[in-house]
Amino acid sequence: MSEAESGVKTHDTASTLVVVGSIALDTVSTPSAVDHKGLGGSATYFSASAGLLCRPQIIAVLGEDFDRSQLDFLSARGVDLSYVKTVHGKTFQWQGTYGEELGEATTLRTDLNVFADFEPQLDESQKECDFLFLANIIPQLQLKVVEQAHAKFVAADTMNLWINTENATLRKVLSKIDLLVLNEAEAQLLSGAKTIVDSAKAIQAMGPQTVVIKRGAYGAFMLHEREIFACPAYPTQNIVDPTGCGDTFAGGLMGTLARHGRVDDATLREGMVVGTALASFTIEGYSLDGLKAANIAKLRERYACLEALTRFGKFDM
Amino acid sequence: MSEAESGVKTHDTASTLVVVGSIALDTVSTPSAVDHKGLGGSATYFSASAGLLCRPQIIAVLGEDFDRSQLDFLSARGVDLSYVKTVHGKTFQWQGTYGEELGEATTLRTDLNVFADFEPQLDESQKECDFLFLANIIPQLQLKVVEQAHAKFVAADTMNLWINTENATLRKVLSKIDLLVLNEAEAQLLSGAKTIVDSAKAIQAMGPQTVVIKRGAYGAFMLHEREIFACPAYPTQNIVDPTGCGDTFAGGLMGTLARHGRVDDATLREGMVVGTALASFTIEGYSLDGLKAANIAKLRERYACLEALTRFGKFDM
Repeated sequence: MSEAESGVKTHDTASTLVVVGSIALDTVSTPSAVDHKGLGGSATYFSASAGLLCRPQIIAVLGEDFDRSQLDFLSARGVDLSYVKTVHGKTFQWQGTYGEELGEATTLRTDLNVFADFEPQLDESQKECDFLFLANIIPQLQLKVVEQAHAKFVAADTMNLWINTENATLRKVLSKIDLLVLNEAEAQLLSGAKTIVDSAKAIQAMGPQTVVIKRGAYGAFMLHEREIFACPAYPTQNIVDPTGCGDTFAGGLMGTLARHGRVDDATLREGMVVGTALASFTIEGYSLDGLKAANIAKLRERYACLEALTRFGKFDM
Repeated sequence: MSEAESGVKTHDTASTLVVVGSIALDTVSTPSAVDHKGLGGSATYFSASAGLLCRPQIIAVLGEDFDRSQLDFLSARGVDLSYVKTVHGKTFQWQGTYGEELGEATTLRTDLNVFADFEPQLDESQKECDFLFLANIIPQLQLKVVEQAHAKFVAADTMNLWINTENATLRKVLSKIDLLVLNEAEAQLLSGAKTIVDSAKAIQAMGPQTVVIKRGAYGAFMLHEREIFACPAYPTQNIVDPTGCGDTFAGGLMGTLARHGRVDDATLREGMVVGTALASFTIEGYSLDGLKAANIAKLRERYACLEALTRFGKFDM
């Protein structure tokens, strides 16, 4: 599909965006399907999302069993795959299941395979990248990457496992990044606070000036310096599989910052809404199917829907 | 306190607002206090909230044990108490407790007392009122009131107990009202739907053209005809006691409609935000203490905060 057909404008931003994360083979069970097998991985969802907005570069590793033609849609979207290495062994595999509510996944199996020895190395140009996203990998690796890089803006994701088992290293990572994105339960676990504002402020005090808290069907919340922003979820009624929504959201957020080449409250808010809209495509299908169907024209429609969903007038009493 | 001191402007709206509900003596336990005794009741919170915006009239019943000077602040706020009857017996009492999360209350004791024989009768002027709110009372009573009235706009609240035990009567009420307000778990129980949009649409099909779903710390959602609106909660960090927040919210919403004397999407949205802002005062204290501290100047500040919390710019790609 050409850019004109897809509604994607040419995006030759001067800003570079690098994501370090996983490309995986997922097996997912939901109430409507058992053991759906497909492409997955944090870097895959992130770059499929950000690739609509800028030209992200992935640093990841694949096993010899991986058919690289599965990533052709990413190349077509403008994603730079030249740093995705294939090494001896099998590709990272994840298996998870969702209950009736389609909330958090329960992990049934994680086969790290080639990901176990993943040692991301940035080349000289990547070290000087403008925007760097550390997807949810073990904090030791996140720390190694962030210590190599001199990026202008570094964001990271994390999870309850690392908060519980790698807290000291995670804290070191937090002291070196600009933005942390995590879900609400993780934010409470990390901060020990109860309300979302208190959680965000406590995490901000650990390092990142911007804290983004994902609330699933309730949207997303941001504390940036002293500004707070709340974005509702896109009201899709076609909920199939939430796998990858968080990475899709982060891709939309970071892709927006890279597209504009700046980080300020207004651009972060736009990025939160773009991320929310793009995540709504991901949830509408298994694997990358929903997000593959997204393009700029459809993103524009959902952005406008989120505008209509949240607008209200002045109080003039 | 004079109107000038309280920041309340004179409100001589032509529209009349009548609320039928309870005035109660509550005993509440939270993680920070045991058995706090104070004024409560759905009509009390509703009218204390709406009274900032218009001149609501309460239909309720008290026992001889009730010290009516407790309601002086309502009169000062412009609430018409002339239809609050005192009858032989004791006042309605409710006792509830909240867990660490300060979410839904667990009811420990309900002594209906004089409320058991409450048979609200509307006089001729009340039958022709513009706006009527049926607080959360047994659907048989709601039905008797709505069948007496020829109000231009009728709204009602309900709860899981009535959805489970009085479903057929509740359905009759729904077929006769314009707006239903209920919380998210109740909306799912009533509709059998999973997503909030599906829940609201299913309830709309039962009668009310407007369905408002309260989501606690996640804000409130509205389906009005074919328009949807999402309002985040006010980000207060001073959470003391959520008792009465739902009735306060409904009072702000209905008070706004009565103040403007019209029901349209823009006015409903303004009412949702006003209700959200006023509920944030209620949660900051026990009993009516938080809401008593509210005035129009403070409401204006919180409304502006909710504007700042939700605003974002255009997507220009």
